[in-house]
Amino acid sequence: MEAYSQIILASRPKGPPTLRAFRLETAPSPAPAEGQLLLKTTYRSLDPYMRGRMNDAESYAPPVEVGGVMEGEVIAEVVQSRHPAYRGGELVQAKIGWRTHAAVAPEQVEQVETGNNPPSTALGVLGMPGFTAYSGMKVIGQPRPGETVVVAAASGPVGSLVGQLAKLAGARAVGIAGGSAKCAYVRDQLGFDAVIDYRAQGLARALAAACPDGIDVYFENVGGPIWEAVLPLLNRYARVPVCGLVAYYNGEIPQDETRISRTMITVLRRSLLIRGFINTEFVPDHYESFLKELSSLVAYGKIHYREDITEGLASAPEAFIGMLSGRNFGKTLVHVS
Amino acid sequence: MEAYSQIILASRPKGPPTLRAFRLETAPSPAPAEGQLLLKTTYRSLDPYMRGRMNDAESYAPPVEVGGVMEGEVIAEVVQSRHPAYRGGELVQAKIGWRTHAAVAPEQVEQVETGNNPPSTALGVLGMPGFTAYSGMKVIGQPRPGETVVVAAASGPVGSLVGQLAKLAGARAVGIAGGSAKCAYVRDQLGFDAVIDYRAQGLARALAAACPDGIDVYFENVGGPIWEAVLPLLNRYARVPVCGLVAYYNGEIPQDETRISRTMITVLRRSLLIRGFINTEFVPDHYESFLKELSSLVAYGKIHYREDITEGLASAPEAFIGMLSGRNFGKTLVHVS
Repeated sequence: MEAYSQIILASRPKGPPTLRAFRLETAPSPAPAEGQLLLKTTYRSLDPYMRGRMNDAESYAPPVEVGGVMEGEVIAEVVQSRHPAYRGGELVQAKIGWRTHAAVAPEQVEQVETGNNPPSTALGVLGMPGFTAYSGMKVIGQPRPGETVVVAAASGPVGSLVGQLAKLAGARAVGIAGGSAKCAYVRDQLGFDAVIDYRAQGLARALAAACPDGIDVYFENVGGPIWEAVLPLLNRYARVPVCGLVAYYNGEIPQDETRISRTMITVLRRSLLIRGFINTEFVPDHYESFLKELSSLVAYGKIHYREDITEGLASAPEAFIGMLSGRNFGKTLVHVS
Repeated sequence: MEAYSQIILASRPKGPPTLRAFRLETAPSPAPAEGQLLLKTTYRSLDPYMRGRMNDAESYAPPVEVGGVMEGEVIAEVVQSRHPAYRGGELVQAKIGWRTHAAVAPEQVEQVETGNNPPSTALGVLGMPGFTAYSGMKVIGQPRPGETVVVAAASGPVGSLVGQLAKLAGARAVGIAGGSAKCAYVRDQLGFDAVIDYRAQGLARALAAACPDGIDVYFENVGGPIWEAVLPLLNRYARVPVCGLVAYYNGEIPQDETRISRTMITVLRRSLLIRGFINTEFVPDHYESFLKELSSLVAYGKIHYREDITEGLASAPEAFIGMLSGRNFGKTLVHVS
C-alpha cells in the first residue's frame, strides 16, 4: 500500500527557512473522478523562486498560504487513467505541488518532451530553468562573438546553460560559483573560460582580473554583493537580464543596500526595462524621420515649445546655474548678438 | 568694432556651480584661414549635460579642462566666408563652445534645418533635446494608447516633448515641474493630463493620485527623490528610458542613496539595458525553438547539465534549504518514487 503524503507550508520563515517552516503530513487518498488521472510523482523540482512564494509579499505570483501545499512542478507517472487519451505508466509534467500523488484533469498535465534525453531534464536543462537561460540570452543578453558574459550560480541549472550558450555564440564565459568542486566543474566540464570562487576573498578584484575587457552581458540571478562587483565592470551597451535575485529571497537586505535592492527587486518583479541612452546612438536610424515629423508638427502648432532666452554671452554662467536649479522655464538659450 | 569674448572653466565646482567656476575673458581675434569660415554666435545653447563636463569624472564624454572654453552648440551667422560653398549672412549650427566668434572649417558646421520654424529651435525642440525625447520614446518608451507616461522637468525642452509625444500616441501624460507657472504651462499649453508641483509637499502621494493605473513609461531625466517616488508605481513591463540624472550632476548624493544612485548613474553613463523577466513572457515566441535546439544539443553532448537528486519527498525541505544556501550542485531534484 502506497503512502500518500504532502509537504505543507507550516509557517512563514523570517530569513533563511528552517525545517520548522515545513510539515510533512499524510495526504487524503486521491480519488480520480471520471475523466481524471491519478498521478504519482517521480521527480519533484526544487527551485529558488519557491522561497519567494513562502513570503506574504508582492511578487510575480501569489504566495502559498500557510497550511497550504508547497507549490511547484513534477514529473509524474500516470498510475490510473480515467481518461481515454492517457494510459497507465505514461510520464507527464504537472504543477501538483510537493505531493506524492494527485488526481488531476488532463488539462493540468503536459507531455514530457525531452527528445532522447532523460525525463528529469524536463525540470532542468530542458524545462523552466533551461528556458529561463535560453530566452534571457536570446531576447535580452544577445551575446556576440568576442564579448564577455558573466553569470553567477554557474554550476546551477540556469547559470550552467547561460555560460554554455555564451560559448556557443562565440563569447567568453566567466562563471561565479561557490567552492572548488563547483568551480572545477564549471571550468573543466562546462568549458567556461574563467571561474571565480565567491567564497574566496576579493570577489571584485578577481572578477576584474577575469574580465580584462569588461562585461558585456551580466545574467543576473543573484543580486547583492555580486551585483556590486559587476556594476563597475559593465561596458557601454551592456545588457543585464534579471531573472532572479536569490540574495534577497530571504528578505534580509542590509540597511545600506535597501535602495539599490528595491530598484533591482522591482526590475525583477515587474519585468522592467531600464535603458540608459545618449541620443547620438539613435541618430543613424531615427534622426531623419525625427526632423521631418517634428518640423511639421511644430510648424502646424501640434507640438509646443518654449524658450527661456537671456541676453549676452556674459549672462551664460548665471543662466546655466539657474537652469540647474530649475529657475529656467523652457529651453535655456543665450542670445549672443 | 566687435568684442571677441569667451567663457572659460575657471575651476571645477564642488556641488552646485557658482559664478566663480566661470571666467569671461577677451578672446583672441579669430582669423579664418583659406577655406574656413568666421562664425559669430547668434544663439548659445545651455544644457544640463554641461554640468557633467565640468567634473573630472567618468561620463559619456571627456571633461572640459580647467582653463578651457566651456563646450556646447550654437546657432551662428557666417560673418566671413573663405570657402566657396558659404556666403556671409548664412546661419549654421556648430559646436564652438561658449564663444562669441570662432574660425572653423566647413566640416565643423551643419545646416540649420528647422523647416518653417525659427532657427533657435535647432537647439531645442528640433535639435538635441527634442531628438533625445523623440528617440527615447520611439526606441525605448514606446507608449501605447491608454498607457500612463510620466516625465519630470516637464516644462523643459526634453520633458515637454516627451509628454506631447505621449499624448499624440494616445497615452496619458503626467508631468512633474517646479512652481505654479510651469505647472500651468504644462497642463494648459502642452495639454498634459496631470501635473505635479514637486516643490509642494507629498510628491509620492501626489504622483500616486495622478497615476491611478500605475506608470507604464517613466522617462528618467532627473533621478533622486523622483525616481524613489516613481519606482513603487511602475507597472509590469514598464519602460524607463534614462537620458539624464540632473539630481546627481552636482555630485551631491545623499549617503543612503549612494548605492541606488551608482546603479542609475552607471545605467546612464554606459547606456545599459537592464530588463527583468519571467520566462513565461517569452514562451509564445521562443519555447518551440528552445526545445528543438536544446534537446538536440543535450543529446549530442554539446550542452552539459548536472542534477543534484535527493531521495524521498520528506527530504524536500532540507534539499530546498540547502539549495538556497548553495549546498546543491546542479539542478535540485527530489526523486520521490
